[in-house]
Amino acid sequence: MFADDLDHPLAHGGGLAAARRLFTDAPEPFIDLSTGINPYSYPLPQLPPDLFTRLPDPQALAAMAAIAARTYGAPSPAHIVPAPGTQILLPLVAALVASSRAAVLTPTYREHARAAALAGHRVDEITDLEAAREAGLVIVTNPNNPDGRLFDKGELIALAKRLARRGGLLVVDEAFMDLGPRDHSLVGEVGRNAIVVLRSFGKFFGLAGVRLGFALAAPRLASRLAATLGPWAVSGPTLAIGAKALADRAWIQQKREDLFAAADRLKTILANAGLEIVGGTALFQLARTPADLLFRRGFQSG
Amino acid sequence: MFADDLDHPLAHGGGLAAARRLFTDAPEPFIDLSTGINPYSYPLPQLPPDLFTRLPDPQALAAMAAIAARTYGAPSPAHIVPAPGTQILLPLVAALVASSRAAVLTPTYREHARAAALAGHRVDEITDLEAAREAGLVIVTNPNNPDGRLFDKGELIALAKRLARRGGLLVVDEAFMDLGPRDHSLVGEVGRNAIVVLRSFGKFFGLAGVRLGFALAAPRLASRLAATLGPWAVSGPTLAIGAKALADRAWIQQKREDLFAAADRLKTILANAGLEIVGGTALFQLARTPADLLFRRGFQSG
Repeated sequence: MFADDLDHPLAHGGGLAAARRLFTDAPEPFIDLSTGINPYSYPLPQLPPDLFTRLPDPQALAAMAAIAARTYGAPSPAHIVPAPGTQILLPLVAALVASSRAAVLTPTYREHARAAALAGHRVDEITDLEAAREAGLVIVTNPNNPDGRLFDKGELIALAKRLARRGGLLVVDEAFMDLGPRDHSLVGEVGRNAIVVLRSFGKFFGLAGVRLGFALAAPRLASRLAATLGPWAVSGPTLAIGAKALADRAWIQQKREDLFAAADRLKTILANAGLEIVGGTALFQLARTPADLLFRRGFQSG
Repeated sequence: MFADDLDHPLAHGGGLAAARRLFTDAPEPFIDLSTGINPYSYPLPQLPPDLFTRLPDPQALAAMAAIAARTYGAPSPAHIVPAPGTQILLPLVAALVASSRAAVLTPTYREHARAAALAGHRVDEITDLEAAREAGLVIVTNPNNPDGRLFDKGELIALAKRLARRGGLLVVDEAFMDLGPRDHSLVGEVGRNAIVVLRSFGKFFGLAGVRLGFALAAPRLASRLAATLGPWAVSGPTLAIGAKALADRAWIQQKREDLFAAADRLKTILANAGLEIVGGTALFQLARTPADLLFRRGFQSG
């Protein structure tokens, strides 16, 4: 990867305006299968104007962070840092380690490699944890996007211990762990190990527009991230929405069940269309397609 | 400044929850004079649920950035980078220069020195541009907070040219320039010079809770900042609010007049209370106070 490539935007899903321009006759609404975002969004609470007009209140931020810490299972509120989406955390987390070799488990979300390179690392794309031996920074998405691959908790902890001995860090992106087998989560381990876990609010709660994500880490690393983000990184409305949604255990449980059922239906539809399912989670599926014909056929029907 | 200090939050204004706890008998509403935010907020538009549920659309981001470029007077939309508030840009902008000495014109907003130190610079607090001779990074707030001090445009450009010769950068925080003498703005100069200008949306538009700020810089630096922030740093509702407000020239002109009139009234009130006005802008005033008695008297009356 060359320096200039780093500043060139990567293509992502979710560009509905571009899709509408390409396929002007498609019926509305488009069904977006590209972004792994829960279509059954958390209902928006009333948002008093103060949330928009005033600086986000430091106590509201602390309260929301404490709720998130409980819901995700962090050791304490000192182990969590709220950010305006997980994306913005990627280069900041990569910069917690001095420039070195970074190993990214691929295929995966492509911004991980770019963020590590932006933070000054030489990036190796690897397909197996064993290949991470030389790295100072290792980045794993668990469960992985796009293939749903799961990594063994014991193996990841052992890797983090090896990394810690050379001043390194393991980053585990758990963007899809709300539905993933949650006993695989490393959130409970961040206090004891050189591990930073990333969690996404917008995907599971179906509110990707509000921009909310979290880094979970030992307090020393969490303080550094919080200082870099500054005191008002998360917007006032998002603080209110996040606090309400993350505390709503009944909704969380119900949506897990709904999404598992919907994923079963999607798998059936894809299989009936002659596609071979390769992997996935309850928020996305990876299927082998005969050609890009499917892409066009899909868009033309909205 | 020691490494540990960097991660310790600085005290800022705007903490209403804390104020209410200290002064439980104060009448409501509190009038917050601590944050330099326009109390006549831009009226919130309707915010369709899609803005909250979907990832912020890349084309909506580009459109809002183009409007902001025109309103602020940037050479082109390639010279502007939207961010979730100006605060989060501070360490990222400071990191555009290799670790060196950073000079911060003080007294000023205290996060500037901390952000430069977080980016690896040795920070000198100076009171005069002449003292910046050794620095690789110079940070000036213009007009300055808290004293309203204005820096000469020609002098700043000359300083930026000297900095450019040694690979350095001048950062000009124009958070209060919407009301400042706008011919002092360096926005039009960012294409030709080693200058990054920061502009704040929330202060002038009275919408500090939505988190929106901008860096204006040469396209090479702007691309690097945009890549670090990633594609969805600004929330969907904020993109919609920013696009509408920044295009509303009539509102902008009217609010400038209203705020100048309000500032005159505030100056009269402060002077009648026996305070000596030291400086300020139409969004804040700096006055010499006899004691912290005033602080308590103010809070007790809400």
